[in-house]
Amino acid sequence: MPTSGDIEKVVIIGSGPAGWTAAIYAARANLDPLVLEGIPKQTPALMLPGGQLMQTTEVENFPGYPEGVDGPKMMEDIKKQALRFETRVEMREVTSCDLSKRPFTLETVDFGGDTKTVTAHAVIVATGATANWVGLENERRLAQSGGGVSACAVCDGALPAFRDQPLVVVGGGDSATEEATYLSKFASKVFIIHRRDELRASRIMAQRVLDNPKIEVVWDTVVTDVLGDKHVTGVALKNVKTGEESTLDCRGFFAAIGHTPLTEFLQGQLELDDKKYIVLEDAGRSLTNIEGVFVAGDAADSVYRQAITAAGMGCKAAIDAERWLAEKGIE
Amino acid sequence: MPTSGDIEKVVIIGSGPAGWTAAIYAARANLDPLVLEGIPKQTPALMLPGGQLMQTTEVENFPGYPEGVDGPKMMEDIKKQALRFETRVEMREVTSCDLSKRPFTLETVDFGGDTKTVTAHAVIVATGATANWVGLENERRLAQSGGGVSACAVCDGALPAFRDQPLVVVGGGDSATEEATYLSKFASKVFIIHRRDELRASRIMAQRVLDNPKIEVVWDTVVTDVLGDKHVTGVALKNVKTGEESTLDCRGFFAAIGHTPLTEFLQGQLELDDKKYIVLEDAGRSLTNIEGVFVAGDAADSVYRQAITAAGMGCKAAIDAERWLAEKGIE
Repeated sequence: MPTSGDIEKVVIIGSGPAGWTAAIYAARANLDPLVLEGIPKQTPALMLPGGQLMQTTEVENFPGYPEGVDGPKMMEDIKKQALRFETRVEMREVTSCDLSKRPFTLETVDFGGDTKTVTAHAVIVATGATANWVGLENERRLAQSGGGVSACAVCDGALPAFRDQPLVVVGGGDSATEEATYLSKFASKVFIIHRRDELRASRIMAQRVLDNPKIEVVWDTVVTDVLGDKHVTGVALKNVKTGEESTLDCRGFFAAIGHTPLTEFLQGQLELDDKKYIVLEDAGRSLTNIEGVFVAGDAADSVYRQAITAAGMGCKAAIDAERWLAEKGIE
Repeated sequence: MPTSGDIEKVVIIGSGPAGWTAAIYAARANLDPLVLEGIPKQTPALMLPGGQLMQTTEVENFPGYPEGVDGPKMMEDIKKQALRFETRVEMREVTSCDLSKRPFTLETVDFGGDTKTVTAHAVIVATGATANWVGLENERRLAQSGGGVSACAVCDGALPAFRDQPLVVVGGGDSATEEATYLSKFASKVFIIHRRDELRASRIMAQRVLDNPKIEVVWDTVVTDVLGDKHVTGVALKNVKTGEESTLDCRGFFAAIGHTPLTEFLQGQLELDDKKYIVLEDAGRSLTNIEGVFVAGDAADSVYRQAITAAGMGCKAAIDAERWLAEKGIE
């Protein structure tokens, strides 16, 4: 069954490390991939496609950059590498899809609102996830300017600005206890700000946190503002039981209240778990419950969420797609 | 249980993309990792530690290198990045180990033959695998010089030197059919040289190969030499049934006769599959059947075997080890 002129062999949805790595591998495999990189978002500030790295000032842990690299520069490099092998790119967002029959159809829209239907034999979903934020204006501003607000302790905890400084983690689940424990190796003190009076984390991790002399949990409390002009200097707090307001000095603010995978357009089409992550057929591979639909990156990863793990999955998805297309005789 | 001065928190065995990426993450997590990078091998030529990439002339598909990179240069970059975060490195090979009780013990030897016992709370195995070669002198020489001999079609098939040229693949299993199918997109013709009279590959892939007009299987035949001075110009063949000798012109030679994971020192200590790959407890993570022992890279991956997938696994192993050590209260 040869490909008709109108049907794409493989469409990659998303333009983070997973999407571009999938494109590098798919393009080098002569699959002539089309990447739908998404459209700029206008809130809260203009955000270009490229995934979470576009809002990251310094990446120290992606192997191959011994001196570290700015997130946007790194994404530019990886995109350039994909384009070198003649990947095609369209700045379009997928709004809905029909994966119930092959070829698959994707409804897309561009920045100007023009719609287009894209059809494809194989689809690689690499839309990623976004960190959940408390939703404070200063929080977003200081995250984007690299001023000490982060949603990833593993990524940013080791940065010099946080060494021997008091840090704040918001949350009460496994992520919050993991991030606080991680940060306690660097910080002078870690405060967990939690709106409830007990941790939702697994018992063993909760106990580790409570036993850790460098970690203090501030119970029944929410953050009402992040303080600081260029850099975080503290947080404003409010006790939800007493209504009492206070401030706490700190040099770093870590949101650990979960992530939201960008899978809404797949609802009802692809198997998602209760947190809307895409379910892998085999956790070590990229296959989903729909034959011909592959996934890579944070949209299917609630555990690691690193650029390098996403890139590794992008490679797997392209190899799996290539072999599947070959088996089906789609050249 | 605090760490005594003599017990390492985490020892990483191996120095390919998986090992160094694990080191970057472990070092940034303040785990003060020790990398046992292996020792130089003297056969067939002097080979330095650093994994299979040390014998790779051009890497085009590792994201972050838009113009491509030499394998040894890339490994130097990633090692440098690990050292920047104060990873310790010893040029030692692990000859045997005892993983039956914690802390684990590793028996090691250096290039001069001096032995040393290393003890560790957590171990990350990242020893990789080596491609199996036919075992011809010219084969190894032309592989190391980038002269058109390869063991990875996905890595090298798209290189300009192979475009529209006749290529040879040796083997008859799934790898050989996958590699031949992959190469048929670029080559003018692909010859599969197979010592038997039928393919061992899955029926669907075998049929795809037999139906592919660009692929021809040369049955009952072995390669007795790779011809060419600086670049492959052909292969010498021998029919194992008739004894007839012949030559075949080609510009590339791909060995697809499997890989051998470097896991011999783990025999009887860690669960290995029938091909000696390390068995993962959960295919999407890095845990093995021994608590505290983690694995990353080709030693546990018979499917993808790419530098970027190995690096992604290295990251996972370090994060898993960090969380496990935190849970155990080992600081």
